[in-house]
Amino acid sequence: MNSRLDRLITLALEEDIGQGDVTTEATIHEAATGKALVFARESFVLSGSQPFCRVFELLDPRIRIKKTHRDGDKINAEDPFFFLEGSMCALLSGERTALNLLQRLSGIATLTRRMVDAMEGSACRLLDTRKTTPLWRELEKAAVRHGGGTNHRFGLFDGILIKDNHIAAAGGVRQAVERGRRHAGHLMKIEVEVETFEQLEEALDAGADVILLDNFSIEMLREAVDRNRGRAILEASGGVSLERVARIARTGVHFVSCGALTHSARAIDITMEVDLPAGWMEV
Amino acid sequence: MNSRLDRLITLALEEDIGQGDVTTEATIHEAATGKALVFARESFVLSGSQPFCRVFELLDPRIRIKKTHRDGDKINAEDPFFFLEGSMCALLSGERTALNLLQRLSGIATLTRRMVDAMEGSACRLLDTRKTTPLWRELEKAAVRHGGGTNHRFGLFDGILIKDNHIAAAGGVRQAVERGRRHAGHLMKIEVEVETFEQLEEALDAGADVILLDNFSIEMLREAVDRNRGRAILEASGGVSLERVARIARTGVHFVSCGALTHSARAIDITMEVDLPAGWMEV
Amino acid sequence: MNSRLDRLITLALEEDIGQGDVTTEATIHEAATGKALVFARESFVLSGSQPFCRVFELLDPRIRIKKTHRDGDKINAEDPFFFLEGSMCALLSGERTALNLLQRLSGIATLTRRMVDAMEGSACRLLDTRKTTPLWRELEKAAVRHGGGTNHRFGLFDGILIKDNHIAAAGGVRQAVERGRRHAGHLMKIEVEVETFEQLEEALDAGADVILLDNFSIEMLREAVDRNRGRAILEASGGVSLERVARIARTGVHFVSCGALTHSARAIDITMEVDLPAGWMEV
Amino acid sequence: MNSRLDRLITLALEEDIGQGDVTTEATIHEAATGKALVFARESFVLSGSQPFCRVFELLDPRIRIKKTHRDGDKINAEDPFFFLEGSMCALLSGERTALNLLQRLSGIATLTRRMVDAMEGSACRLLDTRKTTPLWRELEKAAVRHGGGTNHRFGLFDGILIKDNHIAAAGGVRQAVERGRRHAGHLMKIEVEVETFEQLEEALDAGADVILLDNFSIEMLREAVDRNRGRAILEASGGVSLERVARIARTGVHFVSCGALTHSARAIDITMEVDLPAGWMEV
Amino acid sequence: MNSRLDRLITLALEEDIGQGDVTTEATIHEAATGKALVFARESFVLSGSQPFCRVFELLDPRIRIKKTHRDGDKINAEDPFFFLEGSMCALLSGERTALNLLQRLSGIATLTRRMVDAMEGSACRLLDTRKTTPLWRELEKAAVRHGGGTNHRFGLFDGILIKDNHIAAAGGVRQAVERGRRHAGHLMKIEVEVETFEQLEEALDAGADVILLDNFSIEMLREAVDRNRGRAILEASGGVSLERVARIARTGVHFVSCGALTHSARAIDITMEVDLPAGWMEV
Amino acid sequence: MNSRLDRLITLALEEDIGQGDVTTEATIHEAATGKALVFARESFVLSGSQPFCRVFELLDPRIRIKKTHRDGDKINAEDPFFFLEGSMCALLSGERTALNLLQRLSGIATLTRRMVDAMEGSACRLLDTRKTTPLWRELEKAAVRHGGGTNHRFGLFDGILIKDNHIAAAGGVRQAVERGRRHAGHLMKIEVEVETFEQLEEALDAGADVILLDNFSIEMLREAVDRNRGRAILEASGGVSLERVARIARTGVHFVSCGALTHSARAIDITMEVDLPAGWMEV
Repeated sequence: MNSRLDRLITLALEEDIGQGDVTTEATIHEAATGKALVFARESFVLSGSQPFCRVFELLDPRIRIKKTHRDGDKINAEDPFFFLEGSMCALLSGERTALNLLQRLSGIATLTRRMVDAMEGSACRLLDTRKTTPLWRELEKAAVRHGGGTNHRFGLFDGILIKDNHIAAAGGVRQAVERGRRHAGHLMKIEVEVETFEQLEEALDAGADVILLDNFSIEMLREAVDRNRGRAILEASGGVSLERVARIARTGVHFVSCGALTHSARAIDITMEVDLPAGWMEV
Repeated sequence: MNSRLDRLITLALEEDIGQGDVTTEATIHEAATGKALVFARESFVLSGSQPFCRVFELLDPRIRIKKTHRDGDKINAEDPFFFLEGSMCALLSGERTALNLLQRLSGIATLTRRMVDAMEGSACRLLDTRKTTPLWRELEKAAVRHGGGTNHRFGLFDGILIKDNHIAAAGGVRQAVERGRRHAGHLMKIEVEVETFEQLEEALDAGADVILLDNFSIEMLREAVDRNRGRAILEASGGVSLERVARIARTGVHFVSCGALTHSARAIDITMEVDLPAGWMEV
Repeated sequence: MNSRLDRLITLALEEDIGQGDVTTEATIHEAATGKALVFARESFVLSGSQPFCRVFELLDPRIRIKKTHRDGDKINAEDPFFFLEGSMCALLSGERTALNLLQRLSGIATLTRRMVDAMEGSACRLLDTRKTTPLWRELEKAAVRHGGGTNHRFGLFDGILIKDNHIAAAGGVRQAVERGRRHAGHLMKIEVEVETFEQLEEALDAGADVILLDNFSIEMLREAVDRNRGRAILEASGGVSLERVARIARTGVHFVSCGALTHSARAIDITMEVDLPAGWMEV
Repeated sequence: MNSRLDRLITLALEEDIGQGDVTTEATIHEAATGKALVFARESFVLSGSQPFCRVFELLDPRIRIKKTHRDGDKINAEDPFFFLEGSMCALLSGERTALNLLQRLSGIATLTRRMVDAMEGSACRLLDTRKTTPLWRELEKAAVRHGGGTNHRFGLFDGILIKDNHIAAAGGVRQAVERGRRHAGHLMKIEVEVETFEQLEEALDAGADVILLDNFSIEMLREAVDRNRGRAILEASGGVSLERVARIARTGVHFVSCGALTHSARAIDITMEVDLPAGWMEV
Repeated sequence: MNSRLDRLITLALEEDIGQGDVTTEATIHEAATGKALVFARESFVLSGSQPFCRVFELLDPRIRIKKTHRDGDKINAEDPFFFLEGSMCALLSGERTALNLLQRLSGIATLTRRMVDAMEGSACRLLDTRKTTPLWRELEKAAVRHGGGTNHRFGLFDGILIKDNHIAAAGGVRQAVERGRRHAGHLMKIEVEVETFEQLEEALDAGADVILLDNFSIEMLREAVDRNRGRAILEASGGVSLERVARIARTGVHFVSCGALTHSARAIDITMEVDLPAGWMEV
Repeated sequence: MNSRLDRLITLALEEDIGQGDVTTEATIHEAATGKALVFARESFVLSGSQPFCRVFELLDPRIRIKKTHRDGDKINAEDPFFFLEGSMCALLSGERTALNLLQRLSGIATLTRRMVDAMEGSACRLLDTRKTTPLWRELEKAAVRHGGGTNHRFGLFDGILIKDNHIAAAGGVRQAVERGRRHAGHLMKIEVEVETFEQLEEALDAGADVILLDNFSIEMLREAVDRNRGRAILEASGGVSLERVARIARTGVHFVSCGALTHSARAIDITMEVDLPAGWMEV
C-alpha cells in the first residue's frame, strides 16, 4: 500500500525540513530549476528506488526522474543510475532524506547479495528476520528480496514461530506445537525453535512443519538433516557470518536466517550531484 | 516531546504485532505474568532506555521496569541492566521492537564513545550529521550525546549550512554568506562549506561564523587553522574513520563531524531473557 | 493492539458526539452520576465486551463497569450482564455508540453459534470470510470465535488463496499453485479454489495444501472427499445456509466457510437502562 | 467532505491488504491490465457508488470506471452496472473492500425502498436513526436517502431529542423542554420522546416542536394525532416492521423512524467478474 | 470531546517545542520543580481554563493546578487565579502555548461581556458567527458563552442559513425557503437572510422560522419588528459596534450577531510568574 | 512543507463543513458552476494567498484561481485581487474558512507594515514573537515577513533565549550564558533577556551574542546602546505601540520585537462576491 509509505516519507521530510530549509531559502531562487544525477562511490546492489523517488514527488510532483537501473541490479562505482530534473529547492531539500533511505536499503541488498553468492551451488535459501529498523520493515524486507534473499514472516501476526519461552509456558515442545496448530489458521504452518536433538525429535514427532535449529554447529546441522529424513522444513540460525554461511548451506538445511542482513548492513556511499544550469542565478 | 515518540513507537508496535501475536496467543495464557532481564553479549555504552521502556508501557501500563544503569553508562558484557516484571504476553510481544531500538541506539552511542575516546587530549569535539535513520533522528542524536558526542543542527530548519550548490547558485562564497545572513534569524550563525584555501579565505573575509573544511588532508587542516587565526569556528569532515579522528583532532580544528556515527554503527548484541514463574502454565 | 481499537472508537465517538451532546448538556448536570445496566430482549451469545467498555472508558476513565459474563457466554433474555456507574453525561453520550458495536458483534456471535450447533457431531469446523464490515474486521473475527467458529486468514497479506482469476492469469491450477509456493513465505500453506473435479485433481497433483470447493453440491462434496484420500485439507463454500450447513458438515470436508456470519447477522436487541439516583436533579 | 471518506477507505484498504496481497503478487504480473464488470444476483436499489469507486481510485488513479446507473436507481438481477478497466492487481486487491461497502449500503437502500413503497399513499415519511455502523454513518444515511427515506439528526450534536433519562433528570417533560429550548441554538427545534398520553399532553403544553411517540399502538397513534390538533410534528417509533409500517403511516403521524434500516439490512449479493485479456499471462 | 482538543493541543505543543526547548534544557535541571501563578494586568472575563490546564497536563500529568476562578468569572487586574506546581521544565516549556490560548479566549469572553452589558435591559441576545479562528471554533464559541453570549449554529452542517447566493440560485426567497424545508432535517429551523422589506415579506410569507436582517438601519429594524408581528424570530447583523449594539437591542429584534466577537477581540495581557524554590539550582 | 499546511486546512474544513453544508446542498445544484471575486473594504497588505487557495483546491481541484496580486502587495479598498471560477458548491462551502484565514493574516501583514513604515529612516528591524495563534504560527510568521517584518526564532527549539527564570535557576546571567553556550549547537547564538544595566554589563561580559532589553525606557535604551559599544546585538521589547516604535528605532538598537503584531492585529474586512451565471438554476 502506497498510502502507508507516503505517510512515513511525509513524516521523514517533516523531520528534516520542519518549518523550512533556511539555507536553500536564503540562497536559491524558488523558481530555479536544475538537474541532478545519483551515483555511488562503490559497486553495490540497488534497493530503495521507490522511496527515493517518492521523497521528491511528495515535495514537488513536477520533478522528473529517469531511472536507468531497477531494484536488484548490480551497479558499478561511479555509474550514475538516477537522473533528476526540476525545482532546485525541492532537489536540495529532499536530497538528504532520499539518500538516507537509499543508502541504507542498498546496503541491505548488497550484503544480502554477497551472502547469497556465497551460498551458490546449494539449494539452501537465505532468510531475513524481524531484526529490522522499526517503521521501515516493509522496505527492508524488499531490500532483502532485491539482494536475492527470501522473506521470513513479516511480523508476529502472519506466522507461527514457537520459541523457548513459548515451549516452557506450554510445558514442552509437543504441547506447544499442538496448541499452535489448534490456534493457528488453517493456512499457517507451525515452526518451532529447538536447541537440542531431543527437542528436534520431539518437534518431528509432534508434526511441526518447520523446525528452526538455533545455534547448531555445522556437524549438528548435518545430523539434524539426517534425522529429519525429509519430514520437516529445516531452518538454521545463529552465528551466520559471511564466512560461515556457505558451510551451513552445504549441510542440507533448507533455509538459513540472518539478522545481520538488516541490523548490521553498512550504508552504501551514494552521492547526489547537482548540476546548476546557467541563467538562474539572479535572485 | 513524548507525544511524538509515543506515536512512532505505537506505529512500530503495530508494524510488528499487526492484528495479534499468534504464537503467544496460542501458547501463553493471557493472565500469565513473568520476569525478564536484559543484558548484552559485549561491553557497550547504553542508549535507548526511554524508547525501550515506552514499548512495554504502551503495551501494558502495569509492567514494572527497574533500571540499574542510565543512558551514557558503559556496561560490561553479560551484566543485566534492565529488569522487567508483568504480563508475559506483553513481554514477549514487545521484546523484538524494544530490542531493535535499543540495539541500534546503543550501537551509535558505543561507536561515538570509541571515537570520542580516540580524540582524548584535544579540545576538538565530535559532531554528528543529518545522515540518520529517517523518523528516528531525535533518538539517534540523543545516542550521540550519550556516547559523548555533540549534536550538529537537527535539520534543515534550525541552522544555516551553505554547501557547494548554494555557493554556485549565489555566485560565490561571499554572496552566499551575505544572503544567508540577510535571510537567517538573528539567533543563527552562518556556516559555509569550503573545499579550497581560496574559498576558505573568501569565507573568512565574508565573516562566516563557522567554516566546514570538507575533505581537507591533515596538513591542509593544519594550514587552515593557521590561516584562520581564531576568526571562525572550524569544522572538519570527510573520511573520518576511527583511525584518522585522533589526528584530525590534533590539528586544532574545533569540531569534526562524522556521518558514520549514525549510518554505519553496528547493532549491539542485546538479549532479553524471560524467566517463567511456576504456576501459570495451565491455559 | 489496543492502540488501533482506541483510535477507531475515538473516531466513532467523534462521529456521534461531534462538538457536543446538546440534549444531555441541556438537561443533565455535568457533575451528575448514575447507574446503568445492560440486557437483551432475546437470548444471545455475547461478543463486544471490550469495545463496549472502551467507549465509556475513553469518555470518562472514572466510569466503573462490572461484567457478570464474558464474551462467548450465552445469556438469557432480560438477564442484565453489564453494570455501569459513573458520570451520567458519559453514560448517556456513549450509550448509542457502545450499543451499536455490542449489538452487531453479539449478532455475529449468536448466528455463528447457531451454525456451529447445527454442525454438532461432525469434526467439520465453521470458518468466516473477508466479507466483514470495513474497519471492524478484528472485532468481527473475534465475534466469530466467541460463537465457536474458526477464523480464516485475516486479510490478503497473511494467507495464499488462489481464485479463478489468479488461475486464469497463471495459465492453470498447477502453474498457479507453483507460483504461489515460490512466492509465499515458508510458513504459509497454499489454498486454491476449484469449481470442477478436473480442477480438484489438478490441485491435488500440484500439491495444494488446502482446496476450496466452491459451490459443490452435497454429492459433489462427498465425491471430493473420496477423491482427496486425505491428501489436502478440504474447505466447502457457497450457499451455506443454516439448513444446509449440517449436511455439508457430514460430507467429511474439514471446513465450511460462510460469509453470512459477518455480512448478514441480525443485530441483537440490547438495551441500556439508566437508573437515576436521587439528589442530583438540581442543575 | 471527501477527505474524511478517503481516510476511512485508506484505513479499510490497509486493514485488508496490509503489507501486500500475497496471492495476487504471486500469480499476476504487476503490469497486467484487465476489465471487470459488477452485477447483483438479485434486483436491488443501488447505493455506495462513490466509496466503491474511491477504493479503486485510491489504489490506482489510472483505473477507469464507467457507471450506467446512479445511487437510488433500481437495478435488475444480473444487469451489470459498473465497468472497470485498469491494473489487474488493483482490481483484484480492491475487490473485496469495494464490494463489502457496496453490498451493505445497497442492502440499506433496498430495505428502505421496500418500506417506503409500503407507505405509499400516505404523506408520512420514513426516518432513519443513529443505530448505524460506527464510522460509516455518513454513507449509511446517504443510503437511506437513496432508498427514498429521510434522515433524522446526524448525531448528538445537530438536534435535540429529549428521552426518558433526560426527562427524569430534569424533573418532568415540561422542565426538560424548557431547558432544551434555553440551551439549544435558535435554529434547532426541540423533540421530546413520550410514552403516555399524559406525557404527550405535557409536551404539547410545553410547546415541543416535535414529539416522538415511542411504542404506541396503532390505536394510540391515531388518538395522538387527534389530540395533537396540528400543533407539533409527530414521529412514531418502536416495532416498525415491514408489515406494520403501512398501518402506522395511515394513522396520520408525520414521520416513522426505524433502526432496522441500518442495523438489520441484509447485504445484497453483488459480484465483480474479472475478464482477463489475452497477452498478459507471461510473468 | 476531549480527544479532539487533546489532539489540537498536542499539535500546538509540537509546533512550539519541536525537538526540544533548548534554553530550558541548557539552564534548568530536569528534576527541578517550582511554582507559578497566573494573573492579568487588566480586569477581564476568564475563558480557556480547560485548554490552559490541558497544555500542562499533556506535558506532565503530575503537574498540580489550583483554580480559584471558573470560566465566565470576572477577575480583577493583578489578582492571581491559577496556581501551578510541578516540573519546572514543563512549566517553562508550556507557558507560551498555554498563555496564547488563554489570552485570546479571555479576550473574546471579555469583549462579549462588554457587549452583553451594553444590551442590558433588553430581551435581545447576542450571537456569535462562523468568523472564528480555524481549528479553535469550539473553544471560541465556548468563550462567547462564558462572556454571556449565545452561540449561532456551529458550522455549515447543523443549521440552515440561506444567503443571497442561495436565494439567487433558487430563484427567489420563497423557492429557497421551500427547498431548505424539503432538504433540512425535521429538527432544523430555516433561517433566511434578507436585505429589503420586500424580501422580508416574502420570507414571512414563505414561513421562514428565523430571518436575518442584514445591514438594516435602526429605523429599518424597528419597522421589521412591526411588520413581523411575532411570526418569525428576527436576527440583526452588520455594523455591530459596541456603540450601536444597545440601540439595535432596543428595536425589539430577538438576536443580534457580531463577527467581531471572535475575529477582532484584543488578547488580554496575562502573565505567568514562576517562583523558584530554593535548593534546586545545582545542575 | 505543504503536507502540514494541507492537514491543517483539511481539519479546518472539516470543522466548518462537518458532514455537509446543508444550506448549499438544499439550494444549489451540485453541478452548478460560478465565478467569484475577492476584495476588501479597506486598503491593506495582502497575506494568506496560499492557504486561501488551498482551501478551494482541497475542496475541488478543478477550481481555477487567478491572482492579480502577491503576498506583501498593498491593495486598495474595493480592488478585486482574486478571481475564482468553478463548482458553486465548493465556492460557497469554502468561502468562510478561506476568508477567516485571509482576513487574519492580512491583518497581521497590514499592522506590521504600518509599524515598519513608522520606523523608516532607521536601520532597526521589527521582529515578531512566539505570541501567535497556536497551529498557525508558520502562516502568521510569513504574514509578518509580508508586512516587511523580520522573524524571531520560530519556536523553543531553534534559538536560545535565556529569560529571568532561566537566569534565576542558573544562579546569574553569567552562569546562564555559559550553560547556554555549552548546551547549544555551534550554529546557535545565545540571547539573554536583561532588565537592568547591571544585568546588561554581566551579559556583555559573559559574551552573550544578543541581548534583549526588556521594558527599557527610551533613555535607558540609548544608554544601553552606548554601553554596548557594538559588542552584542541589541533587541528592545515591551510596550511597543505604533506611537513608540519610531522612537525606539532611533535609539540605535538593532531590533525591536512586538507581540501585538500577531496577537492583536485586527482582521481586515474582506468579502467574496459570488456571481451567478445564467442557466444553472434548475435543480
